[in-house]
Amino acid sequence: MPTMKAVVKIKPEPGGAELQDVDVPTIGADEVLLRVQATSICGTDVHIYEWNPWADRRIGAGRLPQTLGHEVAGEVVEIGSYVKNIKKGDYISSETHIFNPGDLQSLLGQRHIGKNMEILGVDRDGVFAEYVMLPERVCWINDRCIPPEFASVQEPLGNGVYAVLGEDADVAGKSMVIVGDGPTALFATGVARATGVAKIIVVGFSDFNLDIARRMGADHILDIKETSLDERHQFVLEQTGGYGVDISLEMVGGEVPIKEAFTHLRKGGRLTAFGVASEAQVPIDYNDGIVFKGAQVYGINGRKVFDTWYRMRGMLAGKRLDISPVVTHVMELEDYEKGFEMLTAEPRQAAKIVLFPDHSELKAARERMDEKRDMPAAD
Amino acid sequence: MPTMKAVVKIKPEPGGAELQDVDVPTIGADEVLLRVQATSICGTDVHIYEWNPWADRRIGAGRLPQTLGHEVAGEVVEIGSYVKNIKKGDYISSETHIFNPGDLQSLLGQRHIGKNMEILGVDRDGVFAEYVMLPERVCWINDRCIPPEFASVQEPLGNGVYAVLGEDADVAGKSMVIVGDGPTALFATGVARATGVAKIIVVGFSDFNLDIARRMGADHILDIKETSLDERHQFVLEQTGGYGVDISLEMVGGEVPIKEAFTHLRKGGRLTAFGVASEAQVPIDYNDGIVFKGAQVYGINGRKVFDTWYRMRGMLAGKRLDISPVVTHVMELEDYEKGFEMLTAEPRQAAKIVLFPDHSELKAARERMDEKRDMPAAD
Amino acid sequence: MPTMKAVVKIKPEPGGAELQDVDVPTIGADEVLLRVQATSICGTDVHIYEWNPWADRRIGAGRLPQTLGHEVAGEVVEIGSYVKNIKKGDYISSETHIFNPGDLQSLLGQRHIGKNMEILGVDRDGVFAEYVMLPERVCWINDRCIPPEFASVQEPLGNGVYAVLGEDADVAGKSMVIVGDGPTALFATGVARATGVAKIIVVGFSDFNLDIARRMGADHILDIKETSLDERHQFVLEQTGGYGVDISLEMVGGEVPIKEAFTHLRKGGRLTAFGVASEAQVPIDYNDGIVFKGAQVYGINGRKVFDTWYRMRGMLAGKRLDISPVVTHVMELEDYEKGFEMLTAEPRQAAKIVLFPDHSELKAARERMDEKRDMPAAD
Amino acid sequence: MPTMKAVVKIKPEPGGAELQDVDVPTIGADEVLLRVQATSICGTDVHIYEWNPWADRRIGAGRLPQTLGHEVAGEVVEIGSYVKNIKKGDYISSETHIFNPGDLQSLLGQRHIGKNMEILGVDRDGVFAEYVMLPERVCWINDRCIPPEFASVQEPLGNGVYAVLGEDADVAGKSMVIVGDGPTALFATGVARATGVAKIIVVGFSDFNLDIARRMGADHILDIKETSLDERHQFVLEQTGGYGVDISLEMVGGEVPIKEAFTHLRKGGRLTAFGVASEAQVPIDYNDGIVFKGAQVYGINGRKVFDTWYRMRGMLAGKRLDISPVVTHVMELEDYEKGFEMLTAEPRQAAKIVLFPDHSELKAARERMDEKRDMPAAD
Repeated sequence: MPTMKAVVKIKPEPGGAELQDVDVPTIGADEVLLRVQATSICGTDVHIYEWNPWADRRIGAGRLPQTLGHEVAGEVVEIGSYVKNIKKGDYISSETHIFNPGDLQSLLGQRHIGKNMEILGVDRDGVFAEYVMLPERVCWINDRCIPPEFASVQEPLGNGVYAVLGEDADVAGKSMVIVGDGPTALFATGVARATGVAKIIVVGFSDFNLDIARRMGADHILDIKETSLDERHQFVLEQTGGYGVDISLEMVGGEVPIKEAFTHLRKGGRLTAFGVASEAQVPIDYNDGIVFKGAQVYGINGRKVFDTWYRMRGMLAGKRLDISPVVTHVMELEDYEKGFEMLTAEPRQAAKIVLFPDHSELKAARERMDEKRDMPAAD
Repeated sequence: MPTMKAVVKIKPEPGGAELQDVDVPTIGADEVLLRVQATSICGTDVHIYEWNPWADRRIGAGRLPQTLGHEVAGEVVEIGSYVKNIKKGDYISSETHIFNPGDLQSLLGQRHIGKNMEILGVDRDGVFAEYVMLPERVCWINDRCIPPEFASVQEPLGNGVYAVLGEDADVAGKSMVIVGDGPTALFATGVARATGVAKIIVVGFSDFNLDIARRMGADHILDIKETSLDERHQFVLEQTGGYGVDISLEMVGGEVPIKEAFTHLRKGGRLTAFGVASEAQVPIDYNDGIVFKGAQVYGINGRKVFDTWYRMRGMLAGKRLDISPVVTHVMELEDYEKGFEMLTAEPRQAAKIVLFPDHSELKAARERMDEKRDMPAAD
Repeated sequence: MPTMKAVVKIKPEPGGAELQDVDVPTIGADEVLLRVQATSICGTDVHIYEWNPWADRRIGAGRLPQTLGHEVAGEVVEIGSYVKNIKKGDYISSETHIFNPGDLQSLLGQRHIGKNMEILGVDRDGVFAEYVMLPERVCWINDRCIPPEFASVQEPLGNGVYAVLGEDADVAGKSMVIVGDGPTALFATGVARATGVAKIIVVGFSDFNLDIARRMGADHILDIKETSLDERHQFVLEQTGGYGVDISLEMVGGEVPIKEAFTHLRKGGRLTAFGVASEAQVPIDYNDGIVFKGAQVYGINGRKVFDTWYRMRGMLAGKRLDISPVVTHVMELEDYEKGFEMLTAEPRQAAKIVLFPDHSELKAARERMDEKRDMPAAD
Repeated sequence: MPTMKAVVKIKPEPGGAELQDVDVPTIGADEVLLRVQATSICGTDVHIYEWNPWADRRIGAGRLPQTLGHEVAGEVVEIGSYVKNIKKGDYISSETHIFNPGDLQSLLGQRHIGKNMEILGVDRDGVFAEYVMLPERVCWINDRCIPPEFASVQEPLGNGVYAVLGEDADVAGKSMVIVGDGPTALFATGVARATGVAKIIVVGFSDFNLDIARRMGADHILDIKETSLDERHQFVLEQTGGYGVDISLEMVGGEVPIKEAFTHLRKGGRLTAFGVASEAQVPIDYNDGIVFKGAQVYGINGRKVFDTWYRMRGMLAGKRLDISPVVTHVMELEDYEKGFEMLTAEPRQAAKIVLFPDHSELKAARERMDEKRDMPAAD
């Protein structure tokens, strides 16, 4: 039985993860085996790594040990006998919402929001490993001109694409506020710029990240450390002829940012509800924020499978969207602990960190990044 | 100066209204004078009549005296010199959101939700009178086969049409819960039935109104006096293969019914937020109700101008929609006090009440209604 | 090896079909075996039966023998080892566009129009048999309250649903012309009525079928034997305030009916292009019909998988749509020749004919139909 | 009575136009008087100038003399007494489809395609003059950061915006073929690039214009002088994984380019029908091009009023879209004959030509253009 390196969460406690040698997965007839070229760290991985209350409730100690990670790009090295469209050698990324094709939502074209689904790295072993087994139906074939460090982060980038485009992809020439400056908000900023949003105002607090937002195409940055909500709202009104923005993205979660996102929205505008609130119940100004405002509020979760992926591939391959400012670091898979540390440090010093199981592939990634810019050293 | 009868709110206190002789309005160059054939009583009129806190804040004592009412059907008897499309003798109803054509929303096809608008009977003299002056741009030409008692209630019926159809009119063959049994919810029930909603479940509490809901086409009635939210939710799941409904209409307002509307909605479903909440801030289960549910929440206010009116005219004139069960009473305009009493009595004993300034037109309406059914006597 | 009865096309010539004993199909791991309860005859079957030039080109003599038929309802009697959502005993119908999940179109939610697909009964053995093998992914679970003679015709009924609803399902309260009176046009008439189309005008020539159109809910019938295009256009203008209809369905194919469908359409209206033209190139009044008219022309082919099926199931199970006037005959599978004769006779004397392999199931169907109406005797 | 310079078509024959002194228009109560700062020459102006058969039929000798031109930017110098939202000093451009607000299309949000409308410079005096009278309802307030030579060409740019965005503005990340290299096609190329179209292939024949297409953001140029339709189709298939493009814009008109636009479109794709065909009837491959392809064909005419204008203003003001490569020349209004000559010369040597009544404003425009590039001398 061949083995491989994998970052495995072993204990239901903060930091209880280890780099272990585990069996390479065996695949079923409708599955493929992927050699992981790049994998990236998500906030969800941090929650599981730290074993916060959500992780304890959602995953539970009983399922451990389990391999971490769900963002990935790699090469197919083996396919099952019923696999129809994926071939050995294909360069793929994985949709992490492992949908059930028989769900009503799947049948109706909403595969991303099905009633019965598994999440990669949450409900089953993840991708912080040399190999991973994936059902054919979640495999997405990448354009080979997209390097692994970008292909891997398409999962959160896809969140940004979906958050910006919403249900109808009608954004061209409109105005937008993005509340939040986390990695997905930074991706969203770039997507908004690439898709013709005419005015982009980002609200955030991290100097490190807001600088990235600027490089991703934000027209205006509103720092909550330096301005009040009223001041920011006045600014938004000035920038929009007194109306407020056409589209407002809430990408933080919680009563305060949600209020902000509704405040800046014009009557008849559209709001993306993407951020997960820390509160079980969020007080909303329901009448003035939704009913009388004639607002269209879209809960955005995951990515449209595969509409979002298709557009994203097009924009990346066509050089419409340069995400290099957000991918701040690349490092060895075995340095995952350093990655987790950097992502939890305050003030922030990293946005997306991509891990490489293979040293020579890491080296190539680093060279590509060096070509583009003076990169902050990751090690 | 010719005069006319009008029901005028004169004092900022409960019931401070009188039937008075006032001047017939004079019209401007882009306005028309309407002889009121029928006008109907809305909950908003009740609020103004009773001078509740909303009325005091929204209208204010300083604007009184002011004629009540905004739901209307009548005949154009005079037109201004710049009126282009409305002719003397036209049989019209009025959109009550007197929009400003220069508002951004108006320019973009959202006339009903403009930043600067006047509401008929709220921001200016209303239609509980023999005549009313209207800007040409809010006049809607009725089909003459629609009798005045139905043409007058198109304003709230239009709320029902918009609430059911939402932004995209995509309802055919879907399942729906309607939370609420007020007149607009009853209209919505009929609209849902007429437009091919495949399963209609109405949640309410008034025996009188729920009986009307049944006659308007509800498949299932859930009485909140006899069932718990959990029981109702179980019923909805049984009726929808365990998923919840495709579309949920909240037509009451307030934390409890809003929670109910979100509870019954399936993942990826659409929710109409129509009811006005009594609370300034409504606690919402934001994560599970909106974000993870991938819900599409539409604030619905007014009617699409004039998309909603066009569809409504078609459905009424084409006999696709019979609203006679909801129009429970017709009476003289001067009997308005009796109308207000009936609409505030508990338990409920009236849904929509239509007032006629002219006795012979009332008589004709009564005969039309008697033809259709055994009508509860209104006087 | 168990055998079964099947209607097999054996020779590339008119009528070269036979009822034969053939092997019951063996299924693969992602397939199911269906016991056919009901199957219905489509115009495509007639083309293959008669071996017209299309059949010769599309199928070719080399593929014969091949079992005819693609409209079906039945019971699952066996499932493959990888089947996930279909169970033994399920009551299903089949989507006949056997899509490839890896097609771009399938990935983007357009499974019905994929580049690489097989058509049941055209590209592989069909359903005029006691049993048929189907991939799980095209199985649709019926509501058990829908009898087999209705469940079987959902394939063409679904054409009608898609033709009426178009890409956006926005039809409520609008006006419609349906050019054509074949079975799918008759289904479309019923769907239009059920979904709130406010005015339905059907243009056709068969007395038998136009009578069915009337029973399916057409408001106006225009018989091309008795009226000229100009007269019909004048009528349409009178019925639509001089504008033309909001939606026009072309359900015949060919220069003349296509011209008619464009003629009646209002500026800014929507046209469904469903009928297959007999000409390779159809002359179109491109400027006035499409460009200056601002028309939205949708090519409609197949059914949305499974959006159309879901709505259809809801409307049938919810009794929103009664298709019994269109299902004019039921008969034994072995009487298929009589069925083909009836469907090609002039003047028309049948719309949809449903075949039953099992005599007792046929008997039950006949009793259900007799309950509803005086049915023309099929044998 | 004050007079002004105007370019007036006086005789129904080629070139029968003169620079005349005519009365400054007097305005009605709902109109404004505009001082023309910039006006640009459209192909329609060329048709009228040359008095081709279309002009003779559409305008007719009886209406002459009439001032030419409809593309304009200028300053409001007088307003009528009923003007509500436009003020003296406003910097505006004009929607040239002078819609009737009472048209069904206008009532339903399709003002650009109304049954009863006047076209500026076609059905009434145009803008090749120092002043023009405009109804308030077609005035669009420009952002002052947009210079007059760009503000004036928003009318054809708006065609390009609408042609690219279609009815739903859903283009981000998709692939597109643009058949045509006229000014509107060049604008469309820039709009496609600005709105995130991921791959843009332009098909044309003019070296001068195709060079501009490249500068506007085309990824690939296919010159019909050097390639066959088959070769171009092979190229499109190679660029799209064998499927064809998601969106195809036909911007020439006529059987050959229309065939090309349909050929490159993938199954389930969207086609913009913008070009006006020279033939009364265009032969279309109706079955394979529309029905079996499941194509969505949109007739695109004019601009969405004012949705298109709003997005266009945002994109120009936000520097998302640089149209300077298309605005090849600026000159004095009185040099209009030279302008017409340049636009009809072969091979092409100009794309958009902007005329200035005022010499100092022309001088400023020229300086702005010189700043940007080495401009071909216009005089």
